[in-house]
Amino acid sequence: MTENRLTPYNSTYGKSELVIPELQLLLGDKLVLSQAVRDQHGGGEVTYHTNMAPDAVAFANSTDQVSEIVKICAKHAVPIVPFGAGSSLEGQVSAVAGGICIDLSEMNHVIQLNTDDLDVTVGAGLTRQELNVYLRESGLFFPIDPGAEATLAGMAATRASGTNAVRYGTMRDNVINMTVVMPDGEVIKTGGRAKKSSAGYDLARLMIGSEGTLGIITELTVKLYGIPEKILSAVCSFESIQKACEAVILTIQSGVPVARIELLDEVQVSACNNYSKLDLKVEPTLFLEFHGSENHCVEQVEFFKDIAAEFGSDNFKAAAKTEDRNLLWKARHDAYWAGCDLAPGMAHLSTDVCVPISNFADCVSETKQDIIDSGLIGPIVGHAGDGNFHVLVSFDESSDEDNEKVKRFLDRLAARALKYEGTCTGEHGIGLGKAKYMFAEHGAGVNYMFALKKALDPQNIMNPGKIFYG
Amino acid sequence: MTENRLTPYNSTYGKSELVIPELQLLLGDKLVLSQAVRDQHGGGEVTYHTNMAPDAVAFANSTDQVSEIVKICAKHAVPIVPFGAGSSLEGQVSAVAGGICIDLSEMNHVIQLNTDDLDVTVGAGLTRQELNVYLRESGLFFPIDPGAEATLAGMAATRASGTNAVRYGTMRDNVINMTVVMPDGEVIKTGGRAKKSSAGYDLARLMIGSEGTLGIITELTVKLYGIPEKILSAVCSFESIQKACEAVILTIQSGVPVARIELLDEVQVSACNNYSKLDLKVEPTLFLEFHGSENHCVEQVEFFKDIAAEFGSDNFKAAAKTEDRNLLWKARHDAYWAGCDLAPGMAHLSTDVCVPISNFADCVSETKQDIIDSGLIGPIVGHAGDGNFHVLVSFDESSDEDNEKVKRFLDRLAARALKYEGTCTGEHGIGLGKAKYMFAEHGAGVNYMFALKKALDPQNIMNPGKIFYG
Repeated sequence: MTENRLTPYNSTYGKSELVIPELQLLLGDKLVLSQAVRDQHGGGEVTYHTNMAPDAVAFANSTDQVSEIVKICAKHAVPIVPFGAGSSLEGQVSAVAGGICIDLSEMNHVIQLNTDDLDVTVGAGLTRQELNVYLRESGLFFPIDPGAEATLAGMAATRASGTNAVRYGTMRDNVINMTVVMPDGEVIKTGGRAKKSSAGYDLARLMIGSEGTLGIITELTVKLYGIPEKILSAVCSFESIQKACEAVILTIQSGVPVARIELLDEVQVSACNNYSKLDLKVEPTLFLEFHGSENHCVEQVEFFKDIAAEFGSDNFKAAAKTEDRNLLWKARHDAYWAGCDLAPGMAHLSTDVCVPISNFADCVSETKQDIIDSGLIGPIVGHAGDGNFHVLVSFDESSDEDNEKVKRFLDRLAARALKYEGTCTGEHGIGLGKAKYMFAEHGAGVNYMFALKKALDPQNIMNPGKIFYG
Repeated sequence: MTENRLTPYNSTYGKSELVIPELQLLLGDKLVLSQAVRDQHGGGEVTYHTNMAPDAVAFANSTDQVSEIVKICAKHAVPIVPFGAGSSLEGQVSAVAGGICIDLSEMNHVIQLNTDDLDVTVGAGLTRQELNVYLRESGLFFPIDPGAEATLAGMAATRASGTNAVRYGTMRDNVINMTVVMPDGEVIKTGGRAKKSSAGYDLARLMIGSEGTLGIITELTVKLYGIPEKILSAVCSFESIQKACEAVILTIQSGVPVARIELLDEVQVSACNNYSKLDLKVEPTLFLEFHGSENHCVEQVEFFKDIAAEFGSDNFKAAAKTEDRNLLWKARHDAYWAGCDLAPGMAHLSTDVCVPISNFADCVSETKQDIIDSGLIGPIVGHAGDGNFHVLVSFDESSDEDNEKVKRFLDRLAARALKYEGTCTGEHGIGLGKAKYMFAEHGAGVNYMFALKKALDPQNIMNPGKIFYG
């Protein structure tokens, strides 16, 4: 399959002026043209990509309204960028070709909770925190925790995961059904509410991770879990990344259903000691959480404690009460801010890669050496159970040299992850930032992805410029 | 998106004679034209669909060879049907438009076992049983168990699952990476070996469940699990399907990580008593299996025992030793043959649907009434934890009345599953048999699936006639 790889297949978009009057009729003052609001929607909270504002922001309140907006834009080939909370990190919401941003944050309602089925259907704009607040009385919770206060549809669109994924999986595993507005404005459901199905192509999984380039998720049904009877936390450090990783591998091989298993390298630990006024031993450190019955939790902790000792850790600590657990995990919770605090006043960039767990220690170690050799500041935090890690790179945005240094570091990091049979992103997605790595990772597979994109969105109006073009 | 829904977009296939000489040059005596071998490949073991033999069977032994075969067929627009073990149930391997069957059963080797990563890469034709025999020494196992001796690629192609899915998920959840020969003969990998990725569209999940209509899976990397330290089995019966289902729902809500939870209705239990010389109480009966550490298994069993008692079961029995467990589960293991034995000499058809677990009891109960009202014989076996159940319908194939009766029953069963927010198939797939339900289940979604199919396989040579046309 041959494609003109790096040229967008449509660069003759209609101007936004063509649709704004009709959108105003539809939405009234929910179509916002002010520069401030447009700027708020042009980049996202913490991305290092240049802010590119849409021409207008449409605050939608229903699937039907999103469908109408898309139909109007499709008629005039005006680009559309879906927007949830703006917490994506790779420029996923930048309006590179202008057009209309559809803000879904007002669709933040719970539509139907099914406690017997352990599922809930929600509007696109509900955040995971809002969902968990809603669920409190039910005894259920939604485990996927990417850190940010992200919307559930946004999390689905970027195939998000986070600290709990080692036990509960990623968004890929936890979405049962979705309502999607397709690029022509038609509304589909990707399935029913059954836990499994083998009826045709898996449109839900195709949409998950498509970053708004194939359609707009307006509602979704996600899996829930019973709040564990008991939660125990533990922390311990190791003399090397290698030892910490060996402990992780043995834990997972042994079938311990650990809920979180996070690695902080010694740079991050030191930063946390300073920032959060702690006195952790400055070594690679694992933060763990165990979920289950009282007995089963204790059994898991004891089992892991022995493994940690086997790999030379002598400072294993566990906690059960919420406040003690929070204290024990404080370093992990504050890791991002502690990392930023290492280089106050500078720009900060969070990137991620993911490799098979057997290659995790080598990939992290080489990356640490690369950070030193490059003269960069870059503490590392990893979802060690998944082989996924983050580097928080601080740099002077106004310095061409720094920008170039960071760019080369990111290129090497992605290449290293691929060398180790991994991926250039475990959970942040491609967006603008990693489009250039797609061919290195997927080879000819990109051409078929591109063919799918063209088939569903022949005008290339859905979040153009993302995933495919570097 | 509008499509001419029920008309294949290519009915001008090239004749197989155009490719046979070239395939003979490539494959020698591995291209087989004998009627017996062609007939063996025209239907599958236990399907009720008419046998439709391909024009030739190509026994491939490598991805490169599959690629060459596909390129030759693509050049002449000759249809291709991939074939693993022929254990599919909905006519997935019937050569409805003739053409070349590619038999992958000789690609049955283990390519790479990574014990640290809990994954293994295998050839398409390896069966799950062969894999588990290979893994015996490693302390690991592959849990997906659809019953039949299916190949792993075939299981991926139909998104298979089975008895263990309630704990370990389906093929959707357990494939990490695949090598796929695309409809133009190009070879792609769908990803690396990292446990998760958010790099672009999820081609693996698109291929899983596509039943050979989008490409041919030639290798795959699947997740493995540590063989549990302990396995306990249990059996108990309830006075009604409703009570049994309430016990299942409470068990799952409580977070008991039950590995298998199977329901046999009283018709099936009675059949098993006769066939397997047992004296089970003739009531809806649950068969369970628990995996974990010694203590955790015992805890799970005790927990479930209390739940069963709460819903009126008074005959809970558990077993730990392999031979005792096999004896306890004998009825479940022999269920298919016991079901056939209810109507010796007749044809037997196994069908499945899947609904949200809260609707399982109602859907099963209505189906049982329908079976009685229709004058059919149809014991029911369900993967109760997933809301998935099977009916084994026996009928006289030579009787038009019987055929019509069965057809109407199947139509009502699919409609009932959809009424209960479920799917017309939880694990058997669409094939030929359920294509007619696709629009009822997916509505406009089918048009987008069809657009994907056309984008990747513009000549419609990959397993034509499956999924889309009823």
